Amino acid sequence: MLDPAVPKPALPDLYRAYLDCLNRQAWDELGRYVDATVEHNGRPLGFDGYRAMLVQDFEDIPDLRFTIALLVSTPPFVAARLAFACTPKGRFLGLDAGGRHLRFAENVFYEFRVGRIVRVWSVIDKAAIEAQLGACASS
Amino acid sequence: MLDPAVPKPALPDLYRAYLDCLNRQAWDELGRYVDATVEHNGRPLGFDGYRAMLVQDFEDIPDLRFTIALLVSTPPFVAARLAFACTPKGRFLGLDAGGRHLRFAENVFYEFRVGRIVRVWSVIDKAAIEAQLGACASS
Repeated sequence: MLDPAVPKPALPDLYRAYLDCLNRQAWDELGRYVDATVEHNGRPLGFDGYRAMLVQDFEDIPDLRFTIALLVSTPPFVAARLAFACTPKGRFLGLDAGGRHLRFAENVFYEFRVGRIVRVWSVIDKAAIEAQLGACASS
Repeated sequence: MLDPAVPKPALPDLYRAYLDCLNRQAWDELGRYVDATVEHNGRPLGFDGYRAMLVQDFEDIPDLRFTIALLVSTPPFVAARLAFACTPKGRFLGLDAGGRHLRFAENVFYEFRVGRIVRVWSVIDKAAIEAQLGACASS
């Protein structure tokens, strides 16, 4: 990935391999895809913090699975709409979701540098989850 | 925009022109950018319903302004992260936001067909708004 003339399909393929790594919870491979300086929604987590966040996500949601609904890429960026169908064990995004099977989307942007993710801007569709739970205000 | 060999920059430029149309509230120009069959988050609003939604947005948030933070495009898709700094008059996303100046993002995907938007998948960062309002659960 050091060659700037890398063919266009590389970034989408790399991103799919990253999601496959997550879905296999192959944490020893995560360093192939995530940079040491990675930031998530403005938080400078670094690689260890980022991995810890993902490990915790699978702890909180044992049937978590990352599935691409839409994938758009203009190097060095990837934008994905991810579709989730999963069952949090307990509270999720501050909502009483324990044991409830939820369907929701995440629209997320990634910036890559030399083949690794350096910045992530993620928004999860919390309003859709609230609608399923009948929770929180929805005037 | 009928030519399938349209150059790559066309879609981002078209999208920027669409946002400029919104920011000018130039509703008589909206038909240049939005298809008669447009869907928003799975709802078949059609052009009139989509325009009505946008007109209502500016009614509810008089200082609304669409600003691109990130723009990624793979025809026929555009993905944008939009940055808002605005002041809803009353409730917003079911939250008591009236008169509060808020900063939040929207991550949104658009599908274009023959130069017009046919489908939109939008997620607004409601959790960020709740954090600013100190509202709703945030465990």
